[in-house]
Amino acid sequence: MALTLVLGGARSGKSRHAEELVERLMPPWTYIATAQAYDDEMVERIALHRSRRGAEWRTLDAPHDLADALNGLPAGRPVLVDCLTLWLTNRMLADGDVAAESAALVEALAGHGGPVIVVSNEVGLGIVPDNALARRFRDAQGRLNQMVAQRADRVVFMVAGLPMNVKGSG
Amino acid sequence: MALTLVLGGARSGKSRHAEELVERLMPPWTYIATAQAYDDEMVERIALHRSRRGAEWRTLDAPHDLADALNGLPAGRPVLVDCLTLWLTNRMLADGDVAAESAALVEALAGHGGPVIVVSNEVGLGIVPDNALARRFRDAQGRLNQMVAQRADRVVFMVAGLPMNVKGSG
Amino acid sequence: MALTLVLGGARSGKSRHAEELVERLMPPWTYIATAQAYDDEMVERIALHRSRRGAEWRTLDAPHDLADALNGLPAGRPVLVDCLTLWLTNRMLADGDVAAESAALVEALAGHGGPVIVVSNEVGLGIVPDNALARRFRDAQGRLNQMVAQRADRVVFMVAGLPMNVKGSG
Repeated sequence: MALTLVLGGARSGKSRHAEELVERLMPPWTYIATAQAYDDEMVERIALHRSRRGAEWRTLDAPHDLADALNGLPAGRPVLVDCLTLWLTNRMLADGDVAAESAALVEALAGHGGPVIVVSNEVGLGIVPDNALARRFRDAQGRLNQMVAQRADRVVFMVAGLPMNVKGSG
Repeated sequence: MALTLVLGGARSGKSRHAEELVERLMPPWTYIATAQAYDDEMVERIALHRSRRGAEWRTLDAPHDLADALNGLPAGRPVLVDCLTLWLTNRMLADGDVAAESAALVEALAGHGGPVIVVSNEVGLGIVPDNALARRFRDAQGRLNQMVAQRADRVVFMVAGLPMNVKGSG
Repeated sequence: MALTLVLGGARSGKSRHAEELVERLMPPWTYIATAQAYDDEMVERIALHRSRRGAEWRTLDAPHDLADALNGLPAGRPVLVDCLTLWLTNRMLADGDVAAESAALVEALAGHGGPVIVVSNEVGLGIVPDNALARRFRDAQGRLNQMVAQRADRVVFMVAGLPMNVKGSG
């Protein structure tokens, strides 16, 4: 039913807050992970996040086919998607058509027949990046965030682990 | 009369929101563009923004003499200035006295005899940039944003296309 | 008694706002400075900040031993800590155990027997930094900000010199 976007910077407590939102709902909960371990830093982060979740969580990995993973789920069950930024990174590195894929993803998120909590990074509040790929990523991420926010019933912006209300209310 | 600052990151929907604010007012509307096309990326962005605006818009280009452009307008008509970040970039690359020019610009914005909506980027929420020019730009932009915000009747901070209220109310 | 976190980007008016919050309280006020002048840019900034403060301020320098400085103060008097970002920078460059030291610092901040206003930077809202040290710093800063925010009675997020309320109320 309801779509919630949890947006924030690095280490702003997005994932933890999103998990808390899902755990207020009736289990079982589905966790769709988009992380792909390119290096040791990532392996460590994935393991840390996974160890935090309890037995009522079922985990799916969808580093690329995120819309398909969402569309394949049984309707009505709470889903956490963590996160759009890693999915977008994976798709850009795989040279995907991110504009079209972003549009399809937004349809899958908004069209799911149950509560979806989706985590994404805000990456546009620093100085313009030096390299063109980073600028393209920043643009694609900003557009995707806007599209999701437009369709979302609720948007929160995380600041130091605390949610600020941007759209809807808790 | 009223001065509104629409602040946000890259691809946060600042320009679109600012246009919507102006289009609630009585036409004709004046659009003051500060963009200067240094490369193809910029040419494309300028064309995209321009194509979005309808026939009731009159466009002025003021990549450098922004205060003069504002002071030369007939009083009382709604004005959109898009954006302070490109103006500041142009002035720094032209080796202008940005502190003095920023002060003069703020007077022109606050002194215009009609509604002014001004768009600017927040650029200070990332890691300290490596190079000194980027640090100087970040400081100058932050100071300019503070000066405009202090004189503004209304300030909104854009998050994923949605305005958060910082000062005044809609 | 109360702990207030003033969080924001570069040139967002954090220090000025924090000083105003302290100056509403009964003097004398203690200013704990964490800045260490590595270069001329820093010397200039420190001097500028210092010149803004009046005679009722007593200044302590604690670029490294911040928890000790807090623990050594007489209880009950208003304290301004400016800022956590420079302290964390100093500790990382000195190869300190920043996780353990951050935890001890948060205890000292929360355990002080009087009003403490603490300034910190949000640095996680840009593109992922290229170099590993910057990424580690960004993570450590985000974690420290979350820990302080959790213990704080009040958290404000500065936007162009204006405080947005994140936790508690003014």
